[in-house]
Amino acid sequence: MRIVVALGGNALLRNDEALTAENQRNNIRIAAKALAPIAREHDLVISHGNGPQVGLLALQEAAYKPSEAYPLDILDAETEGMIGYLIEQELVNLLPADRPCATLLTQIEVDPKDPAFVQPTKPIGPFYSETEANKLARERGWSITQDGTRFRRVVASPRPKRIFELGVIELLVNQGIVVICAGGGGIPTVQREDGSLIGVEAVIDKDLASSLLARELKADALVLLTDVDAVYEAWMEPEARAFGRVSPQAISEYAFAPGSMAPKVEAACEFVEQTGGIAGIGQLKDAAKIMAGEAGTVIAPDMTGIRWRG
Amino acid sequence: MRIVVALGGNALLRNDEALTAENQRNNIRIAAKALAPIAREHDLVISHGNGPQVGLLALQEAAYKPSEAYPLDILDAETEGMIGYLIEQELVNLLPADRPCATLLTQIEVDPKDPAFVQPTKPIGPFYSETEANKLARERGWSITQDGTRFRRVVASPRPKRIFELGVIELLVNQGIVVICAGGGGIPTVQREDGSLIGVEAVIDKDLASSLLARELKADALVLLTDVDAVYEAWMEPEARAFGRVSPQAISEYAFAPGSMAPKVEAACEFVEQTGGIAGIGQLKDAAKIMAGEAGTVIAPDMTGIRWRG
Repeated sequence: MRIVVALGGNALLRNDEALTAENQRNNIRIAAKALAPIAREHDLVISHGNGPQVGLLALQEAAYKPSEAYPLDILDAETEGMIGYLIEQELVNLLPADRPCATLLTQIEVDPKDPAFVQPTKPIGPFYSETEANKLARERGWSITQDGTRFRRVVASPRPKRIFELGVIELLVNQGIVVICAGGGGIPTVQREDGSLIGVEAVIDKDLASSLLARELKADALVLLTDVDAVYEAWMEPEARAFGRVSPQAISEYAFAPGSMAPKVEAACEFVEQTGGIAGIGQLKDAAKIMAGEAGTVIAPDMTGIRWRG
Repeated sequence: MRIVVALGGNALLRNDEALTAENQRNNIRIAAKALAPIAREHDLVISHGNGPQVGLLALQEAAYKPSEAYPLDILDAETEGMIGYLIEQELVNLLPADRPCATLLTQIEVDPKDPAFVQPTKPIGPFYSETEANKLARERGWSITQDGTRFRRVVASPRPKRIFELGVIELLVNQGIVVICAGGGGIPTVQREDGSLIGVEAVIDKDLASSLLARELKADALVLLTDVDAVYEAWMEPEARAFGRVSPQAISEYAFAPGSMAPKVEAACEFVEQTGGIAGIGQLKDAAKIMAGEAGTVIAPDMTGIRWRG
């Protein structure tokens, strides 16, 4: 089988832990342990998010010389380096020598007229109090949104249209190499009228980018790993229950949290409906179990209705 | 021909300009213009330095939360993302569609017993006054060295021993893809006794790493591009004169600035002596002219003695 697995940026650098290199490496080691058995048996392409990481880089820059802050496309590229390196190193340590890994920088085309550029929705970086948030909005011109009782910076998140390095990714996968790519949803890039490329200020949703990647690579499965163990109806409420196996039609009837579970369900359904493959959503450490239908939520084209978990 | 070109980090983000994204992109555009004609005719592998960039990231981090500073191997990986992305985007804009580029994260093995870990020599980041330098040494535990009348942070710079992603690089080059790799001299990585890999706090010299890369790839030429137009005898002195064409034996008789021209000359001679290929050293914009022997310094195995320039 050919499998695309997307690792959630929030699961790799958790906001409830200090944002240290050590914590990030430990979380990535958990992910690598979950992925190694899959890499031994299947073609594997790994993508990852970068919400906390790109937010952290933006804060570090602003603390040094805000007047010389780098645009988000360059920070996206930095996170592809940072996170991709740690995934590659931890995964290679668990794989035999004849199963090499490669981490590839990835530019993904977005539409300069995407409405996301006028209405930013993607939360990045840490949570703030209302006072802190208002101060940052004033001082740095950031867009801020409320998230529960706290506040977060939001940036434009245009839809991914085309993966410029697709041919190279395909070449490597066909040669038996585990490819780490489309990190942070890829570097958002616009093709100008003269055909040339230029990066733009945005963060693409990594689940939508991974769905595009899985479709273009004609993958058999797409697995979206995060810090929640499954997709829930009525999440955080007393009557919450987890989807076990469900058809894309059935799950599309429900509403989920925007910027969080909603893009995952959308990305998974898009993949399943267009390819006939299966998609899984669940916790980082459960990768293999989700593939086996023993954990998480599986969205499958051959289901009718919903099987609830537990 | 198969050519490895190394771009100097100092030439891409110059200390005499503001360290902005715009200035870095403009310098990289100059490099891309110089490289595009070579990429159209030859197999091309591009590496780059990261001295100013990795120093900048370290300063940004320290300004935000010094207690949560990331180690240099991760910052190296971030610079491979940042610089690699800009080179790829600017170069792709100048090449035909059938000449794709790929930017690959690269881990390079170093010896944990390398004496460089006890005696740091590689300057990174901006220049400081003596007072600033002493303050940074005290507050952050940085090693500082004098550079002319000013001061700079220095870090360990162990010798590169092995390129872990060599097989992938070779595969891509053989398929006609321009490969950007070994950025910042590669991510310094130690192989532990159990065979597993772990990154270490260092910055590998990118010229020595590029020489290793060129030798392993059996390249015909190695070109080291920087912000100086050639190798000079008596640099900065009234009687300074530039080497035009010279044998590795002849140039090895001279002494050059450590951490700057010395590793370039060493890297170039190592390549020429071990492979019989030619090596060029000169200015970013002169890449094609250096290849043609019309600019810079060329170190060639078939020379006897020295031809001076001008």
